[in-house]
Amino acid sequence: MLKFNEQQQIDDIQGALALRPDVEKIIDTIWEKGFDNIFYLGIGGTYASAMQAVTYINGKSDLPAYVQHAAEYYTTGNRRLTEKSLVILSSVTGTTQEVVVAVDEIKKIGATLLGFIDQEGSLLAEKCDYVITYPAPGTEQLKFFMAADRLMNKNGDFADYEDYYGELEQHLAKGLVEAEKQADAFGLAFAEKHRHDDMHYFIGAGNHWGAVYSYAMCYWEEQSWLRSKSIHASEFLHGTLEIVEETTPVTLFLGEDEQRPLAERVKNMLPRICANYTFIDTKDYPVAGISEKYRGRILSPLLMHCVTQRIDAHVEKLNCHPLEIRRYYRQFDY
Amino acid sequence: MLKFNEQQQIDDIQGALALRPDVEKIIDTIWEKGFDNIFYLGIGGTYASAMQAVTYINGKSDLPAYVQHAAEYYTTGNRRLTEKSLVILSSVTGTTQEVVVAVDEIKKIGATLLGFIDQEGSLLAEKCDYVITYPAPGTEQLKFFMAADRLMNKNGDFADYEDYYGELEQHLAKGLVEAEKQADAFGLAFAEKHRHDDMHYFIGAGNHWGAVYSYAMCYWEEQSWLRSKSIHASEFLHGTLEIVEETTPVTLFLGEDEQRPLAERVKNMLPRICANYTFIDTKDYPVAGISEKYRGRILSPLLMHCVTQRIDAHVEKLNCHPLEIRRYYRQFDY
Repeated sequence: MLKFNEQQQIDDIQGALALRPDVEKIIDTIWEKGFDNIFYLGIGGTYASAMQAVTYINGKSDLPAYVQHAAEYYTTGNRRLTEKSLVILSSVTGTTQEVVVAVDEIKKIGATLLGFIDQEGSLLAEKCDYVITYPAPGTEQLKFFMAADRLMNKNGDFADYEDYYGELEQHLAKGLVEAEKQADAFGLAFAEKHRHDDMHYFIGAGNHWGAVYSYAMCYWEEQSWLRSKSIHASEFLHGTLEIVEETTPVTLFLGEDEQRPLAERVKNMLPRICANYTFIDTKDYPVAGISEKYRGRILSPLLMHCVTQRIDAHVEKLNCHPLEIRRYYRQFDY
Repeated sequence: MLKFNEQQQIDDIQGALALRPDVEKIIDTIWEKGFDNIFYLGIGGTYASAMQAVTYINGKSDLPAYVQHAAEYYTTGNRRLTEKSLVILSSVTGTTQEVVVAVDEIKKIGATLLGFIDQEGSLLAEKCDYVITYPAPGTEQLKFFMAADRLMNKNGDFADYEDYYGELEQHLAKGLVEAEKQADAFGLAFAEKHRHDDMHYFIGAGNHWGAVYSYAMCYWEEQSWLRSKSIHASEFLHGTLEIVEETTPVTLFLGEDEQRPLAERVKNMLPRICANYTFIDTKDYPVAGISEKYRGRILSPLLMHCVTQRIDAHVEKLNCHPLEIRRYYRQFDY
């Protein structure tokens, strides 16, 4: 299977789950000290992951968790981010310009910074109070959700926490590679059909909204250089729907959390106005050993990533366009 | 001038500003009673206006103000929205389906609802605790900002409040119609050039981000049936930039608030990668009688609306497409 190293992917997920004692030690220390608000800080792809984590927490907890955009922070500010706040961030390079500026400002305020920074000794790794370094691609959401889960567990919102992680540690990694195998034929067919689309619309809701936002921007636009637009399922019905015609390419992500009904409403409506739609529903990907009640948490977004990863691998090959090249980003100063 | 009733537009703005004693009476009553958080509730265009109001407050005040998406509310929920919260909303019809459902849920919680509901006796007008009815198009942002300004004034964040509104009452309405006249030739040229674009990108930041979001979705997509995508200036540099080529149509809104530097960064970069860009800068529209220090508040977003209104009027005529018709919205059940 193209661009698929089964053992590596299993090891990556298993290794991320093995960070749990470190995550727990840090979160428990912060919990003891106390905090007023939790901010997931990000920009671009990490902003998308922050949206996923915060939507996840909001649906299950009364913890005061918010998304904070890095560039909005150092321009507009946020006076609810105080010396008592917890700020959680993630960075692959540890040098993302806007995040560095935001973190410098946050340090002046004195908030506690927990960073999942993949590059040891990088600028951001140096600046955070607590750092976890685990440079495995595709584990950012899992790390963010692990921190969220421990916080919710401490807050009394997640009594099944140990049972849940027991299932993930036993079955998640294997389940994801099996899903990816299941999705490969679909990924190829989708890539063949849509790899020259002049525009592609991606729709989603809940903890898939961040995934849709990131998929359109960080994968189709940034990596594949294909035009795409993400739109939240509930917002789609308030404007964007009017430009949909029979041939407009539209893909709807269906997740398994509280906002699934918002995606289902689009699912029911779309076939009446469009003949070029695709539904990707994580419910179509069974995972042995993970209880139904836990699927809407991290499993469903990770399953979606398995599916889109299959699309990307085939688009890359068919379009003769290496996903790692950039026209502009970090190519010159601006 | 096409679709331009100068006296009507002056009367509309002047009438909105004349709502101030009503707004103050309501806000002062709520202030006396106390509240924990302020939520601007919306979906589609009103969600965009909510983003504008909350960004505005965040830049100038420590009031705990948040955007709450209506459909996310009745699915995911928000446990920081309590019986002590103030919820501010706006609706032209007073019947927006998702907002009605959200408001019903909020009423169960017992939060205080302040609605700018343009239709007397409508569902939403009946449900709100305080209602202001003033059905003049283009005044939603002004109403939202008037509530915000009074709240900031009560909170000690806006000592110049009376002076500021003195200037608006004297000079805003006239300033806006003059700006619209100034923008008409540009609006026609822009419409002629871009009315058949297969896709148009709109970029902005700060209290213009909501305007950009709404302009792409509620005007180009919903009213003109033209494909467009909005992207925040700081997010544009983290993905979307890669699909920009010489001929890609990109328009950047430049406002006058704290996030102007984020838009300016795109302004400096864009001409190096694209030859089909447009900058619309509200600084190019002087308004006599309004102090420089006040321009970044409501004036700048309203000036942008004057400019885009000129584009829309010409697109409507040239494209032979009446802006009020909808393919799907409210045309059948879904």
